[in-house]
Amino acid sequence: MDRSVDLRVVAVRTPGFSGADLANLMNEAAIAAARENQKMVTQTHLINSIEKVMMGPERRSRAISQNEKKLSAYHEAGHALVAAALKEADPVHKISIVSRGMVGGYTMKLPLEERRFHTRAQFLADLAVSFGGYAAELAVFKDISTGSSNDIRQATDLAHQLITKYGMSERLGPRSFGHAHEMIFLGRELGAEKDYSESLGTVIDEEVDRVIGKALAAAKKIVTKHRAVLDAIANTLVEKETIERDGFEALIKKFRLKPIAIV
Amino acid sequence: MDRSVDLRVVAVRTPGFSGADLANLMNEAAIAAARENQKMVTQTHLINSIEKVMMGPERRSRAISQNEKKLSAYHEAGHALVAAALKEADPVHKISIVSRGMVGGYTMKLPLEERRFHTRAQFLADLAVSFGGYAAELAVFKDISTGSSNDIRQATDLAHQLITKYGMSERLGPRSFGHAHEMIFLGRELGAEKDYSESLGTVIDEEVDRVIGKALAAAKKIVTKHRAVLDAIANTLVEKETIERDGFEALIKKFRLKPIAIV
Amino acid sequence: MDRSVDLRVVAVRTPGFSGADLANLMNEAAIAAARENQKMVTQTHLINSIEKVMMGPERRSRAISQNEKKLSAYHEAGHALVAAALKEADPVHKISIVSRGMVGGYTMKLPLEERRFHTRAQFLADLAVSFGGYAAELAVFKDISTGSSNDIRQATDLAHQLITKYGMSERLGPRSFGHAHEMIFLGRELGAEKDYSESLGTVIDEEVDRVIGKALAAAKKIVTKHRAVLDAIANTLVEKETIERDGFEALIKKFRLKPIAIV
Amino acid sequence: MDRSVDLRVVAVRTPGFSGADLANLMNEAAIAAARENQKMVTQTHLINSIEKVMMGPERRSRAISQNEKKLSAYHEAGHALVAAALKEADPVHKISIVSRGMVGGYTMKLPLEERRFHTRAQFLADLAVSFGGYAAELAVFKDISTGSSNDIRQATDLAHQLITKYGMSERLGPRSFGHAHEMIFLGRELGAEKDYSESLGTVIDEEVDRVIGKALAAAKKIVTKHRAVLDAIANTLVEKETIERDGFEALIKKFRLKPIAIV
Amino acid sequence: MDRSVDLRVVAVRTPGFSGADLANLMNEAAIAAARENQKMVTQTHLINSIEKVMMGPERRSRAISQNEKKLSAYHEAGHALVAAALKEADPVHKISIVSRGMVGGYTMKLPLEERRFHTRAQFLADLAVSFGGYAAELAVFKDISTGSSNDIRQATDLAHQLITKYGMSERLGPRSFGHAHEMIFLGRELGAEKDYSESLGTVIDEEVDRVIGKALAAAKKIVTKHRAVLDAIANTLVEKETIERDGFEALIKKFRLKPIAIV
Amino acid sequence: MDRSVDLRVVAVRTPGFSGADLANLMNEAAIAAARENQKMVTQTHLINSIEKVMMGPERRSRAISQNEKKLSAYHEAGHALVAAALKEADPVHKISIVSRGMVGGYTMKLPLEERRFHTRAQFLADLAVSFGGYAAELAVFKDISTGSSNDIRQATDLAHQLITKYGMSERLGPRSFGHAHEMIFLGRELGAEKDYSESLGTVIDEEVDRVIGKALAAAKKIVTKHRAVLDAIANTLVEKETIERDGFEALIKKFRLKPIAIV
Repeated sequence: MDRSVDLRVVAVRTPGFSGADLANLMNEAAIAAARENQKMVTQTHLINSIEKVMMGPERRSRAISQNEKKLSAYHEAGHALVAAALKEADPVHKISIVSRGMVGGYTMKLPLEERRFHTRAQFLADLAVSFGGYAAELAVFKDISTGSSNDIRQATDLAHQLITKYGMSERLGPRSFGHAHEMIFLGRELGAEKDYSESLGTVIDEEVDRVIGKALAAAKKIVTKHRAVLDAIANTLVEKETIERDGFEALIKKFRLKPIAIV
Repeated sequence: MDRSVDLRVVAVRTPGFSGADLANLMNEAAIAAARENQKMVTQTHLINSIEKVMMGPERRSRAISQNEKKLSAYHEAGHALVAAALKEADPVHKISIVSRGMVGGYTMKLPLEERRFHTRAQFLADLAVSFGGYAAELAVFKDISTGSSNDIRQATDLAHQLITKYGMSERLGPRSFGHAHEMIFLGRELGAEKDYSESLGTVIDEEVDRVIGKALAAAKKIVTKHRAVLDAIANTLVEKETIERDGFEALIKKFRLKPIAIV
Repeated sequence: MDRSVDLRVVAVRTPGFSGADLANLMNEAAIAAARENQKMVTQTHLINSIEKVMMGPERRSRAISQNEKKLSAYHEAGHALVAAALKEADPVHKISIVSRGMVGGYTMKLPLEERRFHTRAQFLADLAVSFGGYAAELAVFKDISTGSSNDIRQATDLAHQLITKYGMSERLGPRSFGHAHEMIFLGRELGAEKDYSESLGTVIDEEVDRVIGKALAAAKKIVTKHRAVLDAIANTLVEKETIERDGFEALIKKFRLKPIAIV
Repeated sequence: MDRSVDLRVVAVRTPGFSGADLANLMNEAAIAAARENQKMVTQTHLINSIEKVMMGPERRSRAISQNEKKLSAYHEAGHALVAAALKEADPVHKISIVSRGMVGGYTMKLPLEERRFHTRAQFLADLAVSFGGYAAELAVFKDISTGSSNDIRQATDLAHQLITKYGMSERLGPRSFGHAHEMIFLGRELGAEKDYSESLGTVIDEEVDRVIGKALAAAKKIVTKHRAVLDAIANTLVEKETIERDGFEALIKKFRLKPIAIV
Repeated sequence: MDRSVDLRVVAVRTPGFSGADLANLMNEAAIAAARENQKMVTQTHLINSIEKVMMGPERRSRAISQNEKKLSAYHEAGHALVAAALKEADPVHKISIVSRGMVGGYTMKLPLEERRFHTRAQFLADLAVSFGGYAAELAVFKDISTGSSNDIRQATDLAHQLITKYGMSERLGPRSFGHAHEMIFLGRELGAEKDYSESLGTVIDEEVDRVIGKALAAAKKIVTKHRAVLDAIANTLVEKETIERDGFEALIKKFRLKPIAIV
Repeated sequence: MDRSVDLRVVAVRTPGFSGADLANLMNEAAIAAARENQKMVTQTHLINSIEKVMMGPERRSRAISQNEKKLSAYHEAGHALVAAALKEADPVHKISIVSRGMVGGYTMKLPLEERRFHTRAQFLADLAVSFGGYAAELAVFKDISTGSSNDIRQATDLAHQLITKYGMSERLGPRSFGHAHEMIFLGRELGAEKDYSESLGTVIDEEVDRVIGKALAAAKKIVTKHRAVLDAIANTLVEKETIERDGFEALIKKFRLKPIAIV
């Protein structure tokens, strides 16, 4: 391992990695080094291998039309812009529209400090960032694509947890809903059991809608208000395909964007 | 393999083919060549074998009444006409009323470019094309046949996904519905779990209806407005049983049909 | 096999027979010939064996009261009369009140031509024929018996499919309902999954009712209007127990019954 | 076997007996003959053994209070009286308040002729007979006992079938409800699947109620109107514990009870 | 076995005992005799062992606060008082606040005669006795404890059976609800299947409530009206921990309590 | 074992410990003694090991931000303050914001005496203590964190039991809801079966809400009214990380806090 390697930086970029993931990471970095006929694994080998381990290898060879490239760029720009515009959101580490594994692009965020708790305000900001891509597509193309399906599923799950697990709905208060059905069957859970009435289920749905609606409204407001920043990020992505943290922060600074609180 | 073989053309016509499917395709083409006592597999052998691999062998021997032939011809003509009349729809490659495997006829469409995303407008056009056969039967015979059952099932599935997976309903927004129940049991999924209330389920049903209704209205309008083109395609099919892309485009050009946007 | 055997006639009377069924049929015919000490299997042996293979052996020995014989005769006469009175229904091949296997009587219909599609009008006529026995019992005895339970179950299933699979309800349109739950468990399906809301389920039920009501009204109207024909068929059945196609058509002709369209 | 044995009488009294049941019956009759040191099995041995095979051995030893004896007598008298008072009901063969197996008393009815069909009127009469015990308890003791639980369960099942299987509700017509769920699991069915909406389920429940209400009203009316006959039957039962067909018919004749139609 | 042993008394106190239970009882009595170095098992050994077999060994060693002792005494006094105050209830054999196995105290009732039937009035009295402890706690402490959870569960089950199995609701009549789901899976039933509509389910719930409400009202009225008797029983229990039948009947006689009918 | 060991104190602090847990405790204490090179296990070794066995080892090494420390301190202070302010609540034994296993902090309560029963008032106090952390976060930070998810789940379960198992809702009375589904499958229960109608389910939900609302209101009132005490406890925790019983009681005494009844 080269002296350049700073394991703290690697650690910050690999939250949730299992031992096997870390072993895999070292292996990929070694392969990358060997391909370049180098005898030492450098910091660059490690950092580049993180994304490969997380999301699969790059797929530059895949033909992509100009339309789709633009769509992808505005989608990721939406995520990044909303993250930059909200105080409670985690900072953006990297934006990319290079295909990896199953995804067509990605925006990586990393928390400033290790956290034991999450507050309602932080969750709302996370949701708004999730809807950044959707809001950007709608604002720019007046149409929606299938590119938001992962964002939508994860945001819905999170909104459900706010209401049914963390007591974050004022209307429903500190009450949990849905016993986790812990019948492990052939290694998988069977999902949560409905332990409340239909009428309460309707209220839960309304509260989930309220949380999603609030976060979506914040995302839409940001992409509309800062359309110039959105265009700038998207154009840079179309041109360079990837923006690292420093480049992104410089761009944000240029537009004098001041992050505000979501609540 | 003969020099005439253009693998790019084969590739465009075989999206979603697995390695095994491609091996099967080469085998079928070789058998076809052998039947003609030829030593080389030509482009024609390959192209003809694609449909055999996809849908099973032709069943020309099957007796078919004149009534059913006409019904089948108008049904496929309906699909093809709607596809030609909508900007967002994929172009028609081939129309046929020769039975193959389980189907009595088919209309093949192929996208102009490889796609990573699908937009709401493209999905709406796909749905309208699906209902083209149904709309044509209704317009011509004032009756409906069982020939649309596959179209109906696939269109319903797609409409569901627009609403519950891709956030394409304005009323429901970017929220997903129905956790995929991932208990793989003896190798099969158990379907999606209802993770929303009955009252929300009613709204989801109304939104699915709205999408289906919009696409059906578009299909009905097209087959009524361009009835002359519909008759022309159907008559050609009754006579020749098959129309290739070039023939179809010539026919469309004759009627000066201009594709319009669905939205 | 005797020269008298006309395999086309056998083929028309054995739709849906598997290879094993056909082998069984030849075997039964051979047994029948052997019982008569004949060395050749004749057309008669074959035709008589068809019904035995389909529905089990005749059970003439079973004691049957005069009341039940009359009930059975009117029931089958009802089916046959409605079939004869509707243009879209298949022609009657044979009527019988001789018990076979589990059934107390039967009316055999066979389509005029092999069909790939079924239209809404043909299905409605099929439903009306199904209700012919029920309508006849009600008209003649002012009571209903358990003899219609099979007719009712099959008609309900068909009416469901019209609405939920073939898009034949104007109100619900081309939309399918109820994913087939394909978890094959110990060799059996688990039935269809409800993939729609309760409110839509109510509409589906109303539409099934509308279709059943329409077909039942047609059946009732026919048995009332042509009561004389109904009596004639029933009386012949009480006397002879069986009416073949020619006899039935002669009887219908005598009454100058003109088939009308159901729609 | 003694010459006195009339197998026709045995056959009439053993409907639904399997081969094994019949073998068991002969065996029990032989044991009874052996107990009496007789070398021949007589008609009496056979007839007495029928009930033993059907319901288990008599349990005369069991202590029974005078109150319970009276309750039991009126309960069985109720069944028998309603059967005698309705034209469509099967005639009473025997009444007994001697415990056998799990039951505290029984009333045996046997149809006059073998039946292939059951009509709505016959079913209604069967239901009224089922409620005869319940109606008699209510009329005599102004209270209800657990002695009717079997009657209630069987009557409910039958009422359900009238409505959901035989199309005998005028309001719902010839439509079946509830697919039998045929997943045989470790040798047992899983019950019927609800294939209709909640709103239709409410109508089905109302129709079941209407049928039960009609039959119960008939039973109540009969035990009230013919209270003297009811008392006579009950008193005879308290005294003799068993009434055979001839004795019962003589008693009915004495009161000049004329059976009426239920509908 | 000592001559003092009266097996009839043992039999009356051990209803529902299996052969194994009886063997266990004899064994426990023999152990008790051996502990006292006696060679004969006396009536006292047997009677004392009955409760041990039924509910487990006494747990006098367990520390119990004065508050809990008073609570327990009033709870059992409530059961006993209601039993004594109702004509249809079974007589009280013993009251105890000594812990045994899982229970903190108990009131033993035994029927006067063996019963084949239970009437509605008897069931209502049983329910009122069940609620005696709950009503006493409420009247004396103005609070409710977890000590009634067993009473509540058993009373709810019984109330359900009155309505859904025995036809004892005037509003619902002789109709059963809920097919017992007899899929025995690894040796256990799966519970009853809902074979009725939601609207009928609401009526069933209201009827169960009505029955529970009636019995609870009777229990409350008795503990209020006879508060002096309740106090006397509870005080005796706090002092002596156990009251046998004779002592209890003497106490009741002193207060000239006359049992009344519940209906 | 050192003479200093007072097993009574150990017993009071280890309610619900199994034999295996106690063996584990002795083992951990021995390990702790060995680490200090001592030959005797002292009281301190034992007491410190109790928490390790209950909640896992301390995780002081884990980085924790000042914000999270303050959040954690106010959360635990909320629990402790509410416990101190309510007569019916158990006394506080220890408060800590040192991470152990999965929890970020804890407040240990122990009952004054062993209990066989729990009253409604005691349960309400327990619920209010559960919501102490939630109420404190809301009062101090105007936001809610994920730190209350365990409190919320346990409080919801308890509130459910009050209503559905212990008859502690005045509106629903002594009736139990939800049969425990005892199909043990691969060693786990399948949860409770809904044995009541939707309309009753709505009432149950409203009653659960009423109980939770009452307890939450009590908790909110206490943290607001005694904000100075809350701040004092939280500040002490931020400084010392742990408060033992004596320290806590001294602090409470200083503020002259008088516990009141919850009802």
